[in-house]
Amino acid sequence: MTTDATGSSTVTDEAVHSLDTTADPRLRELLTGLVRHLHAYVRETGLTQREWERAIGFLTATGQTCTDVRQEFVLLSDVLGVSMVVEEVNSRDAPDATESTVLGPFHMTESPVRPPDATIDLVGGGEPCVVDVLVRSSDGSPLPGAVVDVWQADGNGFYDVQRPDVQPPGNGRGLFTADAEGRVRFRSCVPSPYPIPTDGPVGDLLRATGRHPYRPAHIHFIASAADHVPVTTHIFVAGGDYLDSDAVFAVKPGLVRDFTRTEDPDLARRFGLTGAFELARFDLVLERT
Amino acid sequence: MTTDATGSSTVTDEAVHSLDTTADPRLRELLTGLVRHLHAYVRETGLTQREWERAIGFLTATGQTCTDVRQEFVLLSDVLGVSMVVEEVNSRDAPDATESTVLGPFHMTESPVRPPDATIDLVGGGEPCVVDVLVRSSDGSPLPGAVVDVWQADGNGFYDVQRPDVQPPGNGRGLFTADAEGRVRFRSCVPSPYPIPTDGPVGDLLRATGRHPYRPAHIHFIASAADHVPVTTHIFVAGGDYLDSDAVFAVKPGLVRDFTRTEDPDLARRFGLTGAFELARFDLVLERT
Repeated sequence: MTTDATGSSTVTDEAVHSLDTTADPRLRELLTGLVRHLHAYVRETGLTQREWERAIGFLTATGQTCTDVRQEFVLLSDVLGVSMVVEEVNSRDAPDATESTVLGPFHMTESPVRPPDATIDLVGGGEPCVVDVLVRSSDGSPLPGAVVDVWQADGNGFYDVQRPDVQPPGNGRGLFTADAEGRVRFRSCVPSPYPIPTDGPVGDLLRATGRHPYRPAHIHFIASAADHVPVTTHIFVAGGDYLDSDAVFAVKPGLVRDFTRTEDPDLARRFGLTGAFELARFDLVLERT
Repeated sequence: MTTDATGSSTVTDEAVHSLDTTADPRLRELLTGLVRHLHAYVRETGLTQREWERAIGFLTATGQTCTDVRQEFVLLSDVLGVSMVVEEVNSRDAPDATESTVLGPFHMTESPVRPPDATIDLVGGGEPCVVDVLVRSSDGSPLPGAVVDVWQADGNGFYDVQRPDVQPPGNGRGLFTADAEGRVRFRSCVPSPYPIPTDGPVGDLLRATGRHPYRPAHIHFIASAADHVPVTTHIFVAGGDYLDSDAVFAVKPGLVRDFTRTEDPDLARRFGLTGAFELARFDLVLERT
């Protein structure tokens, strides 16, 4: 019950107090912080009834845009930078290891197991590339047997799950095991920048804020090895567009990698290529547990 | 682009900066505050990836529970006290006027126009009552012609839209015009406390926090008159249960009203009653614009 200015009770105190009976102490902590922030937000902004109604409508539409293959609330969290802050507060302080970044909404199917040197580009048509990764420990030693899960959009900027009409399942995806030297090599196509989906409430938000929907070109990785902390990350294609304005704020300078033009005949033969292609060579470095 | 501890950019700065291009300055202000609060919340609580995933799932389910006759996000806002804070920051400082409180989620259909002294209880079965309201200005003068919109749950705690099987449309609702003395009188049944809907995500939240879902018995009013500020409010039945623990925090002490047992023969005749009934008599006081 709210009392007037001379009373001791406010709606915020009441709402916080109502959580006293929460059995799980962590849930109580999370909800208490949520109530305090939401109430402070309304008071600070002087949110009007009409603005509140629009917010309710926006959240409702966001929930109703979600399907089995689309998560509009993840997208909303992404474009507000919330996903990246969650990533940040959960990443360990490991200055010698590869930095992590957001998982993103497209790791929704299992990547098919692929042999060494396989291609993950089952369609062709994009600019061919070879990715050559050394998986090693932060102490310098290579990590044979490390498992590397890879996924990326095609040369048109779409994941397999977005375009089942033109991409077979598993296109752009692969689950590789590092060889005796700790290396994972595969053939693919150079990824393109792509727009996040803009036909839902998040698209409306981007338009209202004058923001573009693009993510810079990238390849996703999850690398794991015995006795090491797994890392979920991307590499970004150096020199590409949108590196300074990723719609989801996931770029870290240390994750940008050169794709270099080459005609190396040994590599070309090994990966069934003819003529020039792009080569990206880098280390994925895991911290010891 | 996030830089390390020695850099000048953080995800929060980037996300706020991304809103610089928002055409509507108020939208920019609202979104900037939202980003700052959401990011601060994640940092303060050290929100884990799994907790974030559960929050995304909860918000998605909340959106997907909404239908034409159910607004689960309004309910969520209500049980977190957010709706009441919105109400609070938007209510004018008018110490002589009737206090306002939340609109609630059941003002979704137009109340039928009713003649003076009509009954809004089209079903019967509850405890009969007469509600006798004087609509007046804060300067004391009555307000003939004032319009008073009334809606309430039946004696079982349900609104017409919740139980179309047993209540005709408009049951418990009426749109009245104050007579030459500024009075609105109608017959109804004494409202009951009732639980807000608990079969959705908000119900899960209440159970996880050990909270009951009940609202104390009340009747909703929106009163408006020429040259006066309209008021959206409830009256609460004095002595009833849950006045100190309203699930949506909407009770204000100044809105609690006595329902008094009477057998007044003139009133009984006027409202077609026999025997004892309850009588609630109070003023709705509007502030001059």
